[in-house]
Amino acid sequence: MKNVVLFGASGNIGKQTLEILKTNKNKFKLIAISVGKRINDLETILEEFKDIKTVYSSVSIENLKNKFTKINFVSNNIEELIYNDAHIIVNALSGFFGLKITLEAIKKEKILLNANKESFVVAGNLIQELQQKFVKAKIYPVDSEHCAIFQCLEVDNQINNIYLTASGGPFRNLTLEEIKNVNLKDALNHPNWNMGSKITIDSATMFNKAFEILEAYHLFKTKNIITLVHPNSIIHSMVEFKDGSIKAQLSVPDMKQVINYFFNYPDRVEFTNQKNLNFKETLNLQLKEIDQNRFIPIKMALGCLDEYNSKAICMNAANEVCVEAFLNNEIEFYQITEIVSKIFHTTQKINYNNYNDICAFDKKVRELTISLIKGDK
Amino acid sequence: MKNVVLFGASGNIGKQTLEILKTNKNKFKLIAISVGKRINDLETILEEFKDIKTVYSSVSIENLKNKFTKINFVSNNIEELIYNDAHIIVNALSGFFGLKITLEAIKKEKILLNANKESFVVAGNLIQELQQKFVKAKIYPVDSEHCAIFQCLEVDNQINNIYLTASGGPFRNLTLEEIKNVNLKDALNHPNWNMGSKITIDSATMFNKAFEILEAYHLFKTKNIITLVHPNSIIHSMVEFKDGSIKAQLSVPDMKQVINYFFNYPDRVEFTNQKNLNFKETLNLQLKEIDQNRFIPIKMALGCLDEYNSKAICMNAANEVCVEAFLNNEIEFYQITEIVSKIFHTTQKINYNNYNDICAFDKKVRELTISLIKGDK
Repeated sequence: MKNVVLFGASGNIGKQTLEILKTNKNKFKLIAISVGKRINDLETILEEFKDIKTVYSSVSIENLKNKFTKINFVSNNIEELIYNDAHIIVNALSGFFGLKITLEAIKKEKILLNANKESFVVAGNLIQELQQKFVKAKIYPVDSEHCAIFQCLEVDNQINNIYLTASGGPFRNLTLEEIKNVNLKDALNHPNWNMGSKITIDSATMFNKAFEILEAYHLFKTKNIITLVHPNSIIHSMVEFKDGSIKAQLSVPDMKQVINYFFNYPDRVEFTNQKNLNFKETLNLQLKEIDQNRFIPIKMALGCLDEYNSKAICMNAANEVCVEAFLNNEIEFYQITEIVSKIFHTTQKINYNNYNDICAFDKKVRELTISLIKGDK
Repeated sequence: MKNVVLFGASGNIGKQTLEILKTNKNKFKLIAISVGKRINDLETILEEFKDIKTVYSSVSIENLKNKFTKINFVSNNIEELIYNDAHIIVNALSGFFGLKITLEAIKKEKILLNANKESFVVAGNLIQELQQKFVKAKIYPVDSEHCAIFQCLEVDNQINNIYLTASGGPFRNLTLEEIKNVNLKDALNHPNWNMGSKITIDSATMFNKAFEILEAYHLFKTKNIITLVHPNSIIHSMVEFKDGSIKAQLSVPDMKQVINYFFNYPDRVEFTNQKNLNFKETLNLQLKEIDQNRFIPIKMALGCLDEYNSKAICMNAANEVCVEAFLNNEIEFYQITEIVSKIFHTTQKINYNNYNDICAFDKKVRELTISLIKGDK
C-alpha cells in the first residue's frame, strides 16, 4: 500500500488522478489533498476517500470542518502536506505556485508525479542540482509528451533528437494577422484534449509547447528538441537515436493513461474506461516540423536551453499574468504573445539558483507585465 | 573483435551485411561465407575481406581456387561453416534451405542474425524447444517489422497486441478480379523496399506478411497479431501494452539499419549513408487493419498459430514452388495464392518436430505442387 498526497485535487489533472485512485484503493491510499478556490467537489472527495487526514485549501471551508471532524483543515504552508509517510506526491498545481511542492518533494526524496511543468521552466537547473543531492527522489512527468519520451528511452543509448509533437492548437492554420480576430470562446475550444482553462489558452498560443520544450530539456538533458505539428494528438512524442531509428508512443489522447502509467510504473495495468486505438478505419497521422516564425513562443523557448533561467522565468510569469488578463477580457488573444515577447526580449540572461531569488524575479516580472497591460489599454 | 559467418553473401541481405561489415572491420571479422549460384561478386568480396578462410558455394568456382590458394572452397555440408570460434552467424539464405543453419546455430549457441523467416514458418515450435535447451543462443530477427517489435518490447510488461505493418505491396488497391491481369514485371516492382525477387513476389502476394505473422508468433510468443496496411513503410511495426499504450518504431526503410542494429545491439551506432527521417515536409502516415478476405495468405497464417506446423510447411513449400514457376512464366500471378490455398486447405494439422520429418513433408508438398502446376497448365 502506497500513501499518496495530491496537490490540486479540484483541477483537471487532480480529478483524473482521483479517478485512477478510486479504482485502485487496494494499492494506493490518499492521505492528503490540496484544493484552491474550487471547493464544490470537496465534500464528495472526502466521502469517497476515507483515509484523507489533511486538507489544504486557499479559501475557508467552515461547513466541512463540522462534518469531517477528524480531518485537519489548513490554509497555510501547503508544502507541509508532504508527510514523511507519503510515498507518492502528485503535483497537479497550475502555475508558478507549484514550484515549492516540486522542490520540497525532491528534498524529501519522494516519487513525484509532476504535472506542474512551470517548475522546470523557472527552476530546471535548480531541480537538476537537487536531484544530484537527493538521489532517491524520482520525478515522473505527468504530461503526455514527456511520458511518451520517457517510454521510448533506452538504458544503453543516448537521445539523438526529441520530436515533441504539438496539436498546433485550434489556430494552427491561422496567420499571425488572422490571429488578431480570435476571441475567448475560440481559444478555450481545444480540438483534442479536455483541459483546464490556463493550459487550454497556453495550447492555443503555443506557450504550453514552449514550456514543454524547457521541461524536456531539463528532464532528458538534451538541446536537440524539434517540435512537430501533429494535429490529431495520437503520437504523443518520439525519440530518435544515433542510428536514425525513431521510437514513438501512441494512444487515444487521455491523461488518465499517463497518470495510471506512472502510478504503476514499471508495470502496466488497465484502467477504467480505457479506450484503445482502433484501426478498423484508416488512421491518418500527419507530422511536420513547426514554423518557428509563426509560433514565436517555440523560438523563445529554444533560446532558453542553457544555464540561465531569467528569460524562462520571465516568459512564464508574463504569460501567467497575460492569460489571466485575457480570461478577464482585459487584453486580446494575440496580445498575450506580444506582451510576453516584449518583456522576454528586454530581459538579460541571469541564473537565479535559489527559490527566493526565483520568487523575487518572478514577482518583478509580474509587476512589470501588469503595468504594461495597463499601459496598453 | 567478433568473428562472423555470413550465409547468403550474394543475396540482397548478404550484400547489405557486407556493406555494414566493410566499415566495421575493427569490430567484426568475416571468417566464412556461403554463396549460391550467383558468384559474380565473389572475387571482389574475397579481395575486400582478407580474413575469409572458407567459402561454400553451390556451383564450382575453379578459377578462384587458383587465385585464393589459402581459402578452403567447399560445396558440401554448408552447416559446417558454423565454426566454434564464430560469434555471430548471419543467416541470409532464402527459403527452406536456410532452416538447417538456424537449427545448427542454435545448437552451437551462437548469436544468430536471422533473415530466414522460413525457419520460423516451418519449424517455429522446434526452434522454441531448442532455445529452451541451448539457452545461450540468441536469435535476432533481420526483418524490419520484427526488429521494430524487438525495439518496442519492455522487460516488465507483456505484449497485448502486435501491430504488424504491411506496405500492402504494389497491388494493394486491386481487387481479386483485377489481380488476374498482373504480370511478372508489375510484381517485381515493390514501391518501398529494394529486395530479392522471391521476397518481392511474396510481398506482392502477401505471403511474405503471412510468414512474418508466423515469425512474430514464435519470436514474441503471442497470437494477438494484427496486420495493418501502411503504404509508406515508415512505421515498421508497433506493440500495444495492457494499458492501451502503443510503442512504434519508425525510420527510412533501409535493411542496413536493421543489420547494423543487431550487430551492435544493445548499443546504437551510425552507419554509412544513413538517412534519417525528415519532417521539413509533411509526413503522412496511414494505418488500417487489413482485409483478410482480400489477402488470403494473412487468413491462412492466422490459422497456423498453434502447436502444429504441417499447414505452415505446406504454405511455405507450395509457395516456393509456385513463385519459381511464376518467375519462369509457368503460371500466372494470381495462381500462386490459388494453388497454395488449395493444398493448404486439404492438409491436415500435424506437428512435425524434427528436421528429417519436416524435410520429408516439405518434399512431399513440393512434389504435389509441381503435379498440380502441371495439371493446371
